[in-house]
Amino acid sequence: MAKDKEFVQAITPQGEDFSRWYIDVITKANLMDYAPVRGCIVFKPDGFALWEAVQRELDRRFKETGHRNAYFPLFIPESFLQKEKEHVEGFNPELPWVTEVGDEKLEERLAVRPTSETIIGHMYSQWIQSYRDLPLLINQWANVVRWEKRTLPFLRTSEFLWQEGHTAHATEQEAREETERMLAVYTDFVENELAIPVLQGQKTPSEQFPGAVATYSIEAMMKDGKAVQAGTSHYLGENFARSFDIRFLDKDNERKYAHTTSWGLSTRILGAMIMVHGDDRGLQLPPRIAPTQVMIIPIGPAKARAQVLEAAQQIQTTLRTAGIRTDMDASEDVSPGWKFNEYELRGIPIRLEIGPRDLEAGQAIIVRRDSGEKLPVALADLGTRVDELLIDIQASMLENARAFLRNHSRAVHSIEQLHEVVRTEKGFALAGWCGDAACEAKVKEETGATSRNIPFSPPERMPTCVACQKDAAYTVWFGRSY
Amino acid sequence: MAKDKEFVQAITPQGEDFSRWYIDVITKANLMDYAPVRGCIVFKPDGFALWEAVQRELDRRFKETGHRNAYFPLFIPESFLQKEKEHVEGFNPELPWVTEVGDEKLEERLAVRPTSETIIGHMYSQWIQSYRDLPLLINQWANVVRWEKRTLPFLRTSEFLWQEGHTAHATEQEAREETERMLAVYTDFVENELAIPVLQGQKTPSEQFPGAVATYSIEAMMKDGKAVQAGTSHYLGENFARSFDIRFLDKDNERKYAHTTSWGLSTRILGAMIMVHGDDRGLQLPPRIAPTQVMIIPIGPAKARAQVLEAAQQIQTTLRTAGIRTDMDASEDVSPGWKFNEYELRGIPIRLEIGPRDLEAGQAIIVRRDSGEKLPVALADLGTRVDELLIDIQASMLENARAFLRNHSRAVHSIEQLHEVVRTEKGFALAGWCGDAACEAKVKEETGATSRNIPFSPPERMPTCVACQKDAAYTVWFGRSY
Repeated sequence: MAKDKEFVQAITPQGEDFSRWYIDVITKANLMDYAPVRGCIVFKPDGFALWEAVQRELDRRFKETGHRNAYFPLFIPESFLQKEKEHVEGFNPELPWVTEVGDEKLEERLAVRPTSETIIGHMYSQWIQSYRDLPLLINQWANVVRWEKRTLPFLRTSEFLWQEGHTAHATEQEAREETERMLAVYTDFVENELAIPVLQGQKTPSEQFPGAVATYSIEAMMKDGKAVQAGTSHYLGENFARSFDIRFLDKDNERKYAHTTSWGLSTRILGAMIMVHGDDRGLQLPPRIAPTQVMIIPIGPAKARAQVLEAAQQIQTTLRTAGIRTDMDASEDVSPGWKFNEYELRGIPIRLEIGPRDLEAGQAIIVRRDSGEKLPVALADLGTRVDELLIDIQASMLENARAFLRNHSRAVHSIEQLHEVVRTEKGFALAGWCGDAACEAKVKEETGATSRNIPFSPPERMPTCVACQKDAAYTVWFGRSY
Repeated sequence: MAKDKEFVQAITPQGEDFSRWYIDVITKANLMDYAPVRGCIVFKPDGFALWEAVQRELDRRFKETGHRNAYFPLFIPESFLQKEKEHVEGFNPELPWVTEVGDEKLEERLAVRPTSETIIGHMYSQWIQSYRDLPLLINQWANVVRWEKRTLPFLRTSEFLWQEGHTAHATEQEAREETERMLAVYTDFVENELAIPVLQGQKTPSEQFPGAVATYSIEAMMKDGKAVQAGTSHYLGENFARSFDIRFLDKDNERKYAHTTSWGLSTRILGAMIMVHGDDRGLQLPPRIAPTQVMIIPIGPAKARAQVLEAAQQIQTTLRTAGIRTDMDASEDVSPGWKFNEYELRGIPIRLEIGPRDLEAGQAIIVRRDSGEKLPVALADLGTRVDELLIDIQASMLENARAFLRNHSRAVHSIEQLHEVVRTEKGFALAGWCGDAACEAKVKEETGATSRNIPFSPPERMPTCVACQKDAAYTVWFGRSY
């Protein structure tokens, strides 16, 4: 992992070019590299460690809500995909097809999974016979492939990693509750672990999952005012149950179709986390998810080195014992200044400097990545203080992101205003919508913004459609999106 | 997951038909199901939980030995595979090819990875510039595909899950040490977590990894006397470094090729665990890896039920607090006898029965899955005693498997004797080998056995080649294998 140790290369400022800033940060922070396959990336260890942290926290929540992990095949026979008409139409242009193995042509083409409703639906039809087999609550961690035209590291890649939950229930009500429960799990995870505030709501029909009855999403705002759909939860009704014959004998001795759901969150969340929190100095990782929460940097002249190193080691032990993920950079081939820049770039929440004068004073200097604030802390108080600070940084990051979202969102009454908000002010617009797909399309054509979702509890109800000025049936968030 | 609650279906005895026994056990224990894609299986939750346990314990060991996880693309451009001639020849017949996306033909075919040396080699050539970038120690957890002619659940499936480590080093010595270190990690993991004794050694040239300089393996013996290669570690020399131009500027200012290694362990290890420990009653899970170590079953008449349930709950809390993975089956729709059979089938190491008379006596009954032994244990001692018993069961399982391996292995001096050992006695034969591939092929043709490996420390040195009776250059384990 070659890195020029002489200087930290400049990052394009966000205000100058947000896209270049993003690419600069993710490459210089060593999170990813471009792969030699169209639209694919390599998750380098520092990037993959973020995904491992996401997996750990989400998987815990899935298991706490009664789900178990399983694994289904990567390949989906063409005939399976065609059983659900909307589904195959939605995904067809993006599907990679395996047509031959070795030197032999396959009799039936195999799609590389873009999502697994169809193959899981097929298995569920065999596993579910009676109401006693329900609910069936399964999650899968997997790679999926969608050949996207425009790609962007983490946010939209041909292959990506995700989890996909697939559940089957005896009644519509139970399935709808599950759909909502998992949206709440995502919201809790994204807000409390990643410090990203989200807008919960239902997707409009034109934006929903192919084959779903209703799609719910959480939407986050990046620092350039664009939206990232951070997670989705779908109520699939009986659609897939009918296509794949998932039926069960109910308590009343009648054979009924199961109601199914699916829900997913992918590695795009890493892109969102970077774009929500990053700044001109680089990444900014929320403490709860940061693989390293504290980086210790011993400083001072060579003659004091042994003594300082010993103290730094002790601090590392103290913090690790307190359950704080702590590392130390005692390398001598680069300057402390270089290290300060480097670990700011990498987004480590707290830098802890310790030198001979600090030692004499019985203290260390703590520097917050979020505010840049420097605090001398008595060595005896380090465990407690660092813990408090990590909690405070986590809370501040969420609060700052909330303020940003609030300050870049407003209600609009016309397409001109909507254009102003999404293009000039760079944010989200809350607008009325009559429910006609043509009006949604008009907004998109004239402003580039799409409906993000129909919020469960909008800040206000908008009375007229932003496009046709007729009575609004819905109040909708609009925004440009990744 | 429909399961007939009236009775536990009979399992074919191992002595009658080992293959049918295996399929009976893995299906009735709900570990897997056949997928509608040739040679692929679905890992059902009870099966996937075993893989999660393997991942947890192996991943910990990889991180302790300085490795970090990353993720590389699923697809490998055809031109990459062709850069390493032996490698592509070895894998070509098993490669699924993506030739089209949506309705468009790809300009270059993409292989679905059978292993990732080539694409990782390409990335390493860009990441490694200087000796300071070495060693590079990366692991990947991934799905891979090899279109096998004969498939068997877990042991040989078209798609399987594995981890593949890929490291690069400045010198041959360091790379060889890494190859040995990871073989030792596998050995430690397989013996101490899975209670499977293994034979460590080097593969003969005809059995080594395509593109490797040397392949090392650990080989385990199933209860039918056949071998499973449980893990492999390859020293790749400069082969992949030359094919992919992985060069670095060394301390002496010379540009040199890196020495690389790779090592892998896959979901086939689950098949091995089942075939090493299972018996006519079903699975037998080693306590250290068992997702559930203790299953509590409350028994007794309805009038005592509330009191027994309360005690059972308390026991569950006590055991869980002691860090023992404990579950309880208090369902009323099946008999205790049905449950006993069911959890024996599922291989749970300890069953804990508690009824009104036990309560009066201040005890519970513990039943070991391995020996069937029943032990009354005072409630006050449960935490300690269960912990001791789990340790004892783990040790006994390893010891029993070691005795089995010992009793089914012996030295042979002729092909006839070798045939006798692998076909009639059903075990491994230790034999001399001159080093000529023709002799190895002759053994295979006449006995069906392949060379398993050349042990680092054979129990004895065999003086003459088992096939040609010339001087032996090596002492080799032969066996029929999965």
